[in-house]
Amino acid sequence: MHNFRFTTFLTSNISSSENEIDYLLSRCKIKKVKKGEILLRPGEECKHSFFVESGLLRQFAIDDKGKEHIIQFAPENWFIADRSSVYFGEPSVYFIQALEESKVFLIEEQLFLQLSESDPGFLKSNLRLLHNHIRHLQKRIKQLLSDSAEERYLDFIKIYPDLTLRVPQVYIASYLGITPESLSRIRSELAGKNFTK
Amino acid sequence: MHNFRFTTFLTSNISSSENEIDYLLSRCKIKKVKKGEILLRPGEECKHSFFVESGLLRQFAIDDKGKEHIIQFAPENWFIADRSSVYFGEPSVYFIQALEESKVFLIEEQLFLQLSESDPGFLKSNLRLLHNHIRHLQKRIKQLLSDSAEERYLDFIKIYPDLTLRVPQVYIASYLGITPESLSRIRSELAGKNFTK
Repeated sequence: MHNFRFTTFLTSNISSSENEIDYLLSRCKIKKVKKGEILLRPGEECKHSFFVESGLLRQFAIDDKGKEHIIQFAPENWFIADRSSVYFGEPSVYFIQALEESKVFLIEEQLFLQLSESDPGFLKSNLRLLHNHIRHLQKRIKQLLSDSAEERYLDFIKIYPDLTLRVPQVYIASYLGITPESLSRIRSELAGKNFTK
Repeated sequence: MHNFRFTTFLTSNISSSENEIDYLLSRCKIKKVKKGEILLRPGEECKHSFFVESGLLRQFAIDDKGKEHIIQFAPENWFIADRSSVYFGEPSVYFIQALEESKVFLIEEQLFLQLSESDPGFLKSNLRLLHNHIRHLQKRIKQLLSDSAEERYLDFIKIYPDLTLRVPQVYIASYLGITPESLSRIRSELAGKNFTK
């Protein structure tokens, strides 16, 4: 077995035999993606879930006025996909794009269903991954509705510890649903608080 | 079999035998809930998913300033739960409350796992329900980030056709993440547009 991040992720997160994990890996393609390359466009069906072996992807939407809104970042060890589109076969409304040169594993939905049916351990792990996704989405809705911009930024740093160094501020503001000017003010205020501590 | 909405829902949405659906129903408790009654409080573990047989529930959070933020409404035929808490056994950060006198079915998580393991048809249906939930949450994030308040209100009417008549405007504004004054202005503008058609 190659020493991929994906192998380590599967071994740690999937309660399944080594044989089953080998089989899963053998069925997934690995793809090199250039910085800026687009893996999904609105109107297309999202055919795979992507696991980020190295690099960084983002999922975003563009509104009627041409403004970008970032739904998710996916650095190493994250999954990214339009799960509605993957699962229901609907046209996506999102872009998925590489923000850095990346390597991603392409996972077919059918494979997860097949292994969930044949292996109760895999089923449990699949359900846990889906619930983890739900937990993340639910938290994001609560944050967008009720948390202050500062609280959202602090949580962003917790979820994505190194992204403030890898991603332009304007993308972070877009993820947080605030203007770059507000983000800049929040960062100054937080720096000030640390300074006076 | 009783002629419950829940029975019809299960028969239409679960690819499972009548026996299995009977078994599921026999394992779920039905609970009458008074208007205003609270089924879940922050700090408690959410022990069940609720299916609304009749009436109306809401899931909401209260922020540091005491302001309520409505995450979801659940009229007849909807499920409602803090799925993170149900699944991971974590303390919830939400309230679930009845807005009308209601009847709800209480579903234990273990039951869904057990039936998913023993019955591939049930597994597929369970995965479909989870993905439907993900689709709904993902759409809500996109809306909160990128849609105008008018677009969000029009979508609200589509998802919850009769709730504008059952729920105070202040709750709808809370769900949409806007002030009651903004909602009032949007409603007037939409009425104006219809009038001039």
